[in-house]
Amino acid sequence: MLFGNPGSLHKMGRIAEQLWENSLNDISRILRVSADELIVTSGGTESINTSLTGYLHANPRNGKHIISTRAEHKASLETLLRLEKSGYEVSYVDVDRSGQPDYSAIEDLIREDTALITLTHVNNETGAMLSPKRIADARRRKNPRTAIHLDCVQTLGKCPIDLREWGADMVSFSGHKIHCVKGVGLLYIKKGTRIEPLIVGGGQQRGMRSGTESPWLIRAFAVALTDAIDNMKESLPVIYECRRLLCDRIVGLDGIILSPTDASPYIVNASFGRFQSETLLHAMETHDVFISTISACTSKKKKMSHVLSAMRVPDSVARNAVRFSFSRFTTTAEISEVTRVLDRITEEYSLMK
Amino acid sequence: MLFGNPGSLHKMGRIAEQLWENSLNDISRILRVSADELIVTSGGTESINTSLTGYLHANPRNGKHIISTRAEHKASLETLLRLEKSGYEVSYVDVDRSGQPDYSAIEDLIREDTALITLTHVNNETGAMLSPKRIADARRRKNPRTAIHLDCVQTLGKCPIDLREWGADMVSFSGHKIHCVKGVGLLYIKKGTRIEPLIVGGGQQRGMRSGTESPWLIRAFAVALTDAIDNMKESLPVIYECRRLLCDRIVGLDGIILSPTDASPYIVNASFGRFQSETLLHAMETHDVFISTISACTSKKKKMSHVLSAMRVPDSVARNAVRFSFSRFTTTAEISEVTRVLDRITEEYSLMK
Repeated sequence: MLFGNPGSLHKMGRIAEQLWENSLNDISRILRVSADELIVTSGGTESINTSLTGYLHANPRNGKHIISTRAEHKASLETLLRLEKSGYEVSYVDVDRSGQPDYSAIEDLIREDTALITLTHVNNETGAMLSPKRIADARRRKNPRTAIHLDCVQTLGKCPIDLREWGADMVSFSGHKIHCVKGVGLLYIKKGTRIEPLIVGGGQQRGMRSGTESPWLIRAFAVALTDAIDNMKESLPVIYECRRLLCDRIVGLDGIILSPTDASPYIVNASFGRFQSETLLHAMETHDVFISTISACTSKKKKMSHVLSAMRVPDSVARNAVRFSFSRFTTTAEISEVTRVLDRITEEYSLMK
Repeated sequence: MLFGNPGSLHKMGRIAEQLWENSLNDISRILRVSADELIVTSGGTESINTSLTGYLHANPRNGKHIISTRAEHKASLETLLRLEKSGYEVSYVDVDRSGQPDYSAIEDLIREDTALITLTHVNNETGAMLSPKRIADARRRKNPRTAIHLDCVQTLGKCPIDLREWGADMVSFSGHKIHCVKGVGLLYIKKGTRIEPLIVGGGQQRGMRSGTESPWLIRAFAVALTDAIDNMKESLPVIYECRRLLCDRIVGLDGIILSPTDASPYIVNASFGRFQSETLLHAMETHDVFISTISACTSKKKKMSHVLSAMRVPDSVARNAVRFSFSRFTTTAEISEVTRVLDRITEEYSLMK
């Protein structure tokens, strides 16, 4: 009976529509926003494309100047590059070694024609966490018409979110970072903020995102988010302990922790000077420990992390950076196992030399 | 073990990537195209948006003239409207009472600067089926550089498709029309045809559609398509018989069949002059028979079908049009039941008068 199209008038359509609406209501309660401030997308990348391009196109009078950093996810950087090619000006603010953008530079850069500030709340490679409040304060002081977009793909379900307090006008989320199936994301658009849709057609989602709604995908998102939030209080101390265990061992093995100490505890970026990152990755996977080099979205291109470059991590260190990511299911026992694997691999490696 | 990101370098990533690639290979074999001519999207609407806008933006030298009809799905019509607002010229060719576009008018309209012809292969409201060959012939005679996009959302898995023979440069498909979960679609782009991506970011899918790939969704698409194709030969005669049974009864009850006789047998559009379409829809759903008024994508707006208007069906008839859609699981026994329900409802209705 749950096969219907939410756009249909008949009973099967209404059941599907109800599932869709209930799911959105569940999500909106958790995020403490209104359900009609949410747009369901195919993922974080579509959310970011929609918000940046859609906002600027819908608000031409607010100017053509944008502020961001070079440490954003490629979804933002590539969208910004495209906007630059079509006549927008982007100021890329420096980030420091702890991944923090230069807040005073942001404030200085906000102009009469600054339409948009777009930043990542939790960096996907380092876990570096922004202060949304400081961005909002800078905006308030310099140009209250400037909109703020936050990429919260890595924040959702892991760290507390307070969209009202943060003063964000648009926020992008992804389902698969909270154990939902890949292929669904969300975009929060604060009431009163106008955007132009990226995808037009049947006028679904108040005309903001056309295409047949998928009640199953948004249901999966709602269930995953509910689970994550219900367990956040319990998970966080465990994850902090996991991070401590792992960081201690990395430092013990002469590794360098590149993630800032005040970062999201879910991501530990580190570099083992003597170890090529790909060698370490493949050595660890033989022990069923799966780590990443740079973002999966760019790993196949074998480039150095643009995030670490933006943080001015020396090339020799950044080149061998690896990323350990935890989920709320990660246990300290698992991390103890990871440290034993690290011990063993580094020992084997030094014997081979 | 199938939780990985196809973009990751480690084993879990490779397994996910393999599932993605195997699924695309399965689909490409069925469609007799190359896997790298396929882009996975979130659905038919995104496919259509991507192909029309993406092709025109990537090929500015081919001109700013487009040919289409007013009987297209809203995903096409709204994209065309947006293109018109940004400086493109669209010629809308008439369709006749059998839903066929005026082929000679199309040929006459093709100019030096006609960049694109976009048409629906099987109309979603009437089942009217285009001759792609005639479009390709017209293009060949007038301007071989003109690209052809076909909306084959209603064709896939139901009627034979021969993309090479049809000469189409771009073709849009949707998963949920072949019993796949909602939220996944495909876009075929013939080798050598350049498009600009709609969604940019991590550069997945050869840069043509960024966003983390969802191996599960494309696997579901591949399985659904394989099932549909494997059963097409068996299903088609049954569906033709279902249509005959239903049409006979509709005519017996003084209804008017609006679907052309040479249409896809999966869709029967009919009007019962004395019956308001919504009244009939709700009367039938009490018997667990679910029919549609106009397209689900527009039904909530309670407008008259733009497809029937384009076919010049009189307003009095078009206003009460309903749509019976079959799937390959529909049986003649079910249709006999539907005809009994129709008998009963029309009888009750005439007694009430």
